Amino acid sequence: MSTYVFGHTTPDSDSIVGAISLSYLKNKLGEDTIPSRQGDINPETAFILDKFGYEAPVLKTSYAEESVYLIDFMESSQSPDDIAEATILGIVDHHKLGDLKTNGPLEMWVRPVGCSNTIVKQMFDYFDIEIPKELAGMMLCAILSDTVIFKSPTCTKEDTKACKELADIAEIEDYKALGMEMFIVKSDVLSATKRELVLRDFKDFNMGGEKIGVGQLEVVDLSVFDTMKDELFAQMQILKEEGDRHTILLLLTDIMLEGSQLLVISNEVDKIESAFEITLEESQVWLPKVMSRKKQIIPFLETQF
Amino acid sequence: MSTYVFGHTTPDSDSIVGAISLSYLKNKLGEDTIPSRQGDINPETAFILDKFGYEAPVLKTSYAEESVYLIDFMESSQSPDDIAEATILGIVDHHKLGDLKTNGPLEMWVRPVGCSNTIVKQMFDYFDIEIPKELAGMMLCAILSDTVIFKSPTCTKEDTKACKELADIAEIEDYKALGMEMFIVKSDVLSATKRELVLRDFKDFNMGGEKIGVGQLEVVDLSVFDTMKDELFAQMQILKEEGDRHTILLLLTDIMLEGSQLLVISNEVDKIESAFEITLEESQVWLPKVMSRKKQIIPFLETQF
Repeated sequence: MSTYVFGHTTPDSDSIVGAISLSYLKNKLGEDTIPSRQGDINPETAFILDKFGYEAPVLKTSYAEESVYLIDFMESSQSPDDIAEATILGIVDHHKLGDLKTNGPLEMWVRPVGCSNTIVKQMFDYFDIEIPKELAGMMLCAILSDTVIFKSPTCTKEDTKACKELADIAEIEDYKALGMEMFIVKSDVLSATKRELVLRDFKDFNMGGEKIGVGQLEVVDLSVFDTMKDELFAQMQILKEEGDRHTILLLLTDIMLEGSQLLVISNEVDKIESAFEITLEESQVWLPKVMSRKKQIIPFLETQF
Repeated sequence: MSTYVFGHTTPDSDSIVGAISLSYLKNKLGEDTIPSRQGDINPETAFILDKFGYEAPVLKTSYAEESVYLIDFMESSQSPDDIAEATILGIVDHHKLGDLKTNGPLEMWVRPVGCSNTIVKQMFDYFDIEIPKELAGMMLCAILSDTVIFKSPTCTKEDTKACKELADIAEIEDYKALGMEMFIVKSDVLSATKRELVLRDFKDFNMGGEKIGVGQLEVVDLSVFDTMKDELFAQMQILKEEGDRHTILLLLTDIMLEGSQLLVISNEVDKIESAFEITLEESQVWLPKVMSRKKQIIPFLETQF
């Protein structure tokens, strides 16, 4: 039996870097853990791994009979199918309390901050363990990504503090420039298929018995999507049917304009409109100031469903 | 809207002292919280409050529209009926991950240790807040109670470490003697009704759709129950019917012998026997070394149901 450390399905940079950073910390504390991942590495994460010279965690989607630490999620819909057969030793997360359960006591480091790696940084401090320079650089990038370079409403003082300290360790002076470099990589939506784009940062939620998928793409200039909206809608429709989903939302977030274009395919469009008090035109609407799926989208859907 | 800090239904010393200690810490950190409780104070807790000069937290069983911090539980079956209408800001606990959910991110300090107050002690250290002498004495007692003066298999090095440090702050040299004094108070089962005894430290669990209640009484000498078994069984039967429960278990724990007499009233006695690989005689059995409901009873029931 091994102990694996991994993040959610369709992993983002926080999930991948978090698996590596938390596994490193646990190993330093005398445990024997392996970082893993539930899905493909996205372009932004590939950029981060490459920049700091790390390998991607091992791909593993089944965890029956294994011990596990979860990072960046605590929802069954974002878990491996056989999570109930694994022993969850601990959870490090910054989301709402989800629907996972355990049979025994566990360790949970959950904080209402912008990024799981901010919590991992606090854990390193708590246990007084040194963070290697290159790992600090990756953790810094994870936080810059999750907080959209501090622009997201989910960003807290603890996140900016962690970034400053990690930047010191990583010896990176202009870390906001590093963040922009990362988001420009992230903005490369032309080399991917439309299906890949919808799924790049995609999460399913169970809401009142309905399965609702919400994807998000963050770019430095929204106009890259101008010519591909029809194709994105077509892929959303296909994914909705494939997954027997009630609704698929896609947030196209412009990090410079600080707002999101919301694309909607739903069995009950009126429910979505009422959740956000909006009127869709051609199945979409511009939402000024909306940058966070977690804080500005999910709670309103939860209330509605 | 106020913020309340409280523990589980049928509160034990950890839940009551934890409400007071966590509320004190939160207030020191600049929040405005009130410690509260969901039920009556038991004799052991009354002894602790009296010894260190604290008032009992306010009795409050409804929390709709309030903000809350939970301590020592995260199961809906141990929550106020209207917990879904409250905003859970945070949870400090040492049990398994239960079935509570939230709509937004929260703070969770969950550790696989013997007592919630051990975690609160670590939080005081983390935030570098001083613990008042009398509060330290109460927290010490809560840990001694939950860990049965370090004899419970749930007791960890972190619990003993916290106790030593709290005893220093409280200026209590022989804290094991204080623990015994407390357990002698707890052993006074003669001045309570049999119904009160069954309910004194009683928790309901949802297991595979069935409601299962498990009570525990810890005494320094099991023989005090010799003449009251029939009456205890009668009250268990009444409570089983009143609450539409599948099973009621009562653990009579002898902290000197380090074992428990298990009393069983169940719709499916064979399932209980098979869960623990035991054969009941007159609906009871002696379980050597069994002192922890959480670690030595609940997991086996969970697996069975």
